[in-house]
Amino acid sequence: MNSINKIYLNIAQIQKIVSSDLENVNNIIIENIGNEVPMISELSQHILASGGKRIRPIITLLTSKLCDYKGENHLSLAACIEFIHTATLLHDDVIDESKLRRGVATANDLFGNKTSVLVGDFLFSRSFELMVANGSKRILEVLSSTSSTIAKGEVLQLSTINNCSTSEETYINIIKSKTASLFGAAAEISAILSEKNKNIQNALLTYGQKLGIAFQLTDDALDYIGSESLGKDIGDDFKEGKITLPIIICLRNANKEEILFWNKTIEDLKQTDQDLTKALSLIKKHQAIEETLSLANQYCSEAINALDVFPHSETKLALESLAKLAVNRVK
Amino acid sequence: MNSINKIYLNIAQIQKIVSSDLENVNNIIIENIGNEVPMISELSQHILASGGKRIRPIITLLTSKLCDYKGENHLSLAACIEFIHTATLLHDDVIDESKLRRGVATANDLFGNKTSVLVGDFLFSRSFELMVANGSKRILEVLSSTSSTIAKGEVLQLSTINNCSTSEETYINIIKSKTASLFGAAAEISAILSEKNKNIQNALLTYGQKLGIAFQLTDDALDYIGSESLGKDIGDDFKEGKITLPIIICLRNANKEEILFWNKTIEDLKQTDQDLTKALSLIKKHQAIEETLSLANQYCSEAINALDVFPHSETKLALESLAKLAVNRVK
Repeated sequence: MNSINKIYLNIAQIQKIVSSDLENVNNIIIENIGNEVPMISELSQHILASGGKRIRPIITLLTSKLCDYKGENHLSLAACIEFIHTATLLHDDVIDESKLRRGVATANDLFGNKTSVLVGDFLFSRSFELMVANGSKRILEVLSSTSSTIAKGEVLQLSTINNCSTSEETYINIIKSKTASLFGAAAEISAILSEKNKNIQNALLTYGQKLGIAFQLTDDALDYIGSESLGKDIGDDFKEGKITLPIIICLRNANKEEILFWNKTIEDLKQTDQDLTKALSLIKKHQAIEETLSLANQYCSEAINALDVFPHSETKLALESLAKLAVNRVK
Repeated sequence: MNSINKIYLNIAQIQKIVSSDLENVNNIIIENIGNEVPMISELSQHILASGGKRIRPIITLLTSKLCDYKGENHLSLAACIEFIHTATLLHDDVIDESKLRRGVATANDLFGNKTSVLVGDFLFSRSFELMVANGSKRILEVLSSTSSTIAKGEVLQLSTINNCSTSEETYINIIKSKTASLFGAAAEISAILSEKNKNIQNALLTYGQKLGIAFQLTDDALDYIGSESLGKDIGDDFKEGKITLPIIICLRNANKEEILFWNKTIEDLKQTDQDLTKALSLIKKHQAIEETLSLANQYCSEAINALDVFPHSETKLALESLAKLAVNRVK
């Protein structure tokens, strides 16, 4: 089928393909949150039940299906991936002071910094218990090293905040670490579980990583477009002085006066109410969103191409569609 | 030898017994911090090199020696234990806004909340990489479940803050989880590594756990005594409204006026400059420090008794001395 004419699936159709697995994953998540410590169950349920699309566990479920995996360990490992992701979100909330995530108040707004840090730690530990119980040594290596990579990426990102000389290369390295590594692991572990050869393992790893980069690039573009349906405010990154690709593109094309503007607003974090409007106009002037989304689309194509080693199937179409959806959230 | 006449070792003598192992552990720690991300190495070195006594890794080293372990995995696992502990410290700093730890400014004071959370996450992930590389499935189970237990304890503690009705039982459960579980695991893993029977595994687990409880009880007493040599301020717990045993003892013996005082200062956190002085006088009146330390001494004895299954040796004496030191920090 020619990819131009290909009819991709929407998220509901994708979820339907793994619906019974996904239900099992949700049950494992609820079970592992437990109800021993009320503060943990309250906060975890708030964040884990607040409408996340479970994209990462769905990747594990779909890729396991693609590899014709016959066991049940993929279910707990998919839950484990979601736990790692949720722990990162909770710790990100502490960090970013973001006011809106997924259209609801962040956990941090409702529960405070302390609880977010500690419940994040709990979910993170729980993810390790799940992987120890369900993963081979090789899977444990992949997931524990992924966790380190995520943390390294988050710290690296923190050290580039307010730094206008951050290069595109550094930025791409950060999003590879903090976002794409977990997407990559979510896909790779299915091939390991199913005892597929290195070629297949690498294909799925590449699929996940490229999709993850495309996903984060789109996220960073969305920060300057806003999305009511995704409940995103405009300009959170700008207000924090966080350097993402749209700003890097503007800086690359900036004239002297614009450089002074970015130095004042991003490096010195001296911002007036009008500065976001000015930033948005510069982003428009330099077509920074278009360029960011175009790069996201390139990574999306590379993700889809990585699946070439698999014959056509409904499951493969679902994975291709998921990659398309990662860059088509701009509504 | 009669325990009354026994001459215990000091910390320098204890460290000397495992000095070459301890040097290896320090090298593994430095190696695993790495120097890829400057912010990570800077902060980790600050906290990991700031004069901690390495009590937890020393427990792993001594108990491995006691079990006559011939391999090398205990070195990385001891480093792993110190990483978990350090991650907890970093996240605790975010939480407790403690101004002084080990006599130097906390990492949080110097580096900020965000960095403490993220570098803590990195060290925590690194600890999992170390255990995956060096631990059997059983050791991974013990250490991952210990991490969950610590996080549960921390959240439970958070939910008792400002709550004057916290019982001694709840308090003991909290310190068992947040502190004693890691001490227990530090000792237990040596028996597992050395393939000792369940009886020996349990003896070392008990030793570590009881020592950990004694250690935390002493810490909580020290909070109201202060210790220049340990660099501890007086009354940090009181200022936060944190309920520890000295306060529970005061509440148990309080008259009506005293109950009002504790409700105002701990539950409502309405404190004047004189209130700490008043709290200290009530603690004195009800002999709350003496009672707390007496309980610590009981747990210390239970820790030492747990070692009865081992014949006398210099290593055993070192472990007994470590337990004694945990409760004899009151200087």
